[in-house]
Amino acid sequence: MTTDAIALSADLIRCPSVTPEEGGALVLLGELLSEAGFDCTRVDRAGTPNLFARWGEKGAARSFGFNGHTDVVPTGDTAAWSRDPFGGEIEEGILWGRGAQDMKTAVAAFAAAAIDHVRDTPPDGAIVLAITGDEEGPGRDGTRALLDYMADQGEAMSVCLVGEPTCPEVMGEMIKIGRRGSLTFRIEAQGRQGHAAYPHRALNPLHALVDLLGQMTAEPLDTGTAHFQPSTLQVTTIDCGNPANNVIPARATATVNIRFNDAHSGASLIKWASDLAQTIARESGVTLTLTPDISGESFLTLPGPFVDLVAQAVADETGTVPELSTSGGTSDARFIKDHCPVVEFGLVGDRMHQIDEQVPIAQIATLKQIYARILKDYFA
Amino acid sequence: MTTDAIALSADLIRCPSVTPEEGGALVLLGELLSEAGFDCTRVDRAGTPNLFARWGEKGAARSFGFNGHTDVVPTGDTAAWSRDPFGGEIEEGILWGRGAQDMKTAVAAFAAAAIDHVRDTPPDGAIVLAITGDEEGPGRDGTRALLDYMADQGEAMSVCLVGEPTCPEVMGEMIKIGRRGSLTFRIEAQGRQGHAAYPHRALNPLHALVDLLGQMTAEPLDTGTAHFQPSTLQVTTIDCGNPANNVIPARATATVNIRFNDAHSGASLIKWASDLAQTIARESGVTLTLTPDISGESFLTLPGPFVDLVAQAVADETGTVPELSTSGGTSDARFIKDHCPVVEFGLVGDRMHQIDEQVPIAQIATLKQIYARILKDYFA
Repeated sequence: MTTDAIALSADLIRCPSVTPEEGGALVLLGELLSEAGFDCTRVDRAGTPNLFARWGEKGAARSFGFNGHTDVVPTGDTAAWSRDPFGGEIEEGILWGRGAQDMKTAVAAFAAAAIDHVRDTPPDGAIVLAITGDEEGPGRDGTRALLDYMADQGEAMSVCLVGEPTCPEVMGEMIKIGRRGSLTFRIEAQGRQGHAAYPHRALNPLHALVDLLGQMTAEPLDTGTAHFQPSTLQVTTIDCGNPANNVIPARATATVNIRFNDAHSGASLIKWASDLAQTIARESGVTLTLTPDISGESFLTLPGPFVDLVAQAVADETGTVPELSTSGGTSDARFIKDHCPVVEFGLVGDRMHQIDEQVPIAQIATLKQIYARILKDYFA
Repeated sequence: MTTDAIALSADLIRCPSVTPEEGGALVLLGELLSEAGFDCTRVDRAGTPNLFARWGEKGAARSFGFNGHTDVVPTGDTAAWSRDPFGGEIEEGILWGRGAQDMKTAVAAFAAAAIDHVRDTPPDGAIVLAITGDEEGPGRDGTRALLDYMADQGEAMSVCLVGEPTCPEVMGEMIKIGRRGSLTFRIEAQGRQGHAAYPHRALNPLHALVDLLGQMTAEPLDTGTAHFQPSTLQVTTIDCGNPANNVIPARATATVNIRFNDAHSGASLIKWASDLAQTIARESGVTLTLTPDISGESFLTLPGPFVDLVAQAVADETGTVPELSTSGGTSDARFIKDHCPVVEFGLVGDRMHQIDEQVPIAQIATLKQIYARILKDYFA
């Protein structure tokens, strides 16, 4: 008998686990995994629910980790859905609902694959499942709390596979071996108010801000690296709110978001922007305050045995040789990369976060087979 | 017997004529001037009160015009005032109240000087007083309505003196023989919203806006001309209101105010900015819409007989040789310059628009003497 990843997917979709609600999803997984012989611990932190599960000895020399999340983004207008977003309905081979792609199905697939594996071919090592209920939210107390717990308890993963949807359109076409980092600057420009006809008596903060943002956007940050697309920089807002066209305002603000590859680090970009700001501030007299927030450094798991193993399993099960990509936004892999080599592979993500999120159930079955083959090959 | 410009100033301050309220000020002046033999006509337009007064024959070969306004800006917090802003109190040689500098006193001074002049030395020509109740407001139906009325009725001024406060600190130190023009652009940048991590799928309107504003502010418009200070360009606001740092916004706006000298015209600056915007729009794909509003072209009354006459009268009465300046904001002279040579001279303006606006009454007396001497010399 094998564990039914499709039925488990539908059961998880029926748990209304919009971030930060647990919604019963981690409880369900905990019970299932405990029955299968996994040591399960809830690692909740600051109200965020997390589940740590391990089969095998703590500190085993070989320990395979899976990471994923059971929380989902809000449904949006439920009246716009063709099916109940929390109904878990299957019709004509399609499973409907929030989390059908991102990523209750992948959690179900790796949980089912892991349960079958330890039952049928108990491995010489450990299998760890680190599942969070906060990946779609601020993420402060999700996977990071699980990793902190593991470090604290002497738990470890030799390698980790994150089950995020990685395939743009066709199942099996893409593995993520890295992600760009993300850095946001809040910029405040403080000048001195005055009459627009007498600018020598004022200090226009907007001119300094335009100068700074112009220099930041003038040239691409790079042209890409061996494994990464070019870094990008986007001004996402500028605000001043001055209604009077004969008044030079005292203050203005802006936000800049940078997605950066391994040619940079958060620190190198902060230095770059601060140096530009300092020069402009000195020349203009306007005070420029940059408040950086690094939401993640870039990460890269260089092609090698672990990447090859995952890629080969995908190719064997789907007939498609996956591209090794570092495209897209951020994921919890940005936390895991500091602990062990990490790779991401999951379903096609073309409908994630949308109304009528759905997935062909055949894809769930394929995904479980891929995860099962990865475990088999890893412990062979 | 001479007409008391100080008492008339105090009476006018007691009329609460905050734009657009007439407050009794023009009624008072109309009665006084009618008694003195002036033909007085209220030239109200669209709810804006205006007073036209002429002594002498319509269409006289020599006709001296005065222009001014009886409306005042709001008091601000009246509790912050040391005196009633509409009390017209005189204490220890100081007249207190809103309009004490800008410019009920100058209206009182030129009305008193004109009344005395026609009574004592009836001139071979006409004296025209064009007094508006909307100079501090939008100004659409103020001095412009008076000029439209005059053109319509065959009324004319050979020259015109505007009584705005022109002296920065010392009575008599500055005459305005011109003003820079003022042009405001509202700029809208329309792009396409998208995720900050995938900028190739979006069009960032802020980048096009920063590019445009950067080019507009990069170099001074000019270094000044024979009679003018350099033109100035100020970005007065930029607004977007996008709270999400992972989203590229669809739309942003900005406002730019230009004070320009006689090296430019409203039309030449509109072409300049439109050409810059068109190039950036073509290169970026962002739609840039510029909505210009010319609130006044620059004007200049070249030094010559009229300017010399005013300057000499100021020097004779104050002992100070006035600077011939084109500095500062706009005034109603920008409308009058299309009709006849126009010059501005009035009080020290260091407290205009402020709490506790006030003026030494000696300055009012001096101003009346200067206006009287100008009339005497003009009709000599």
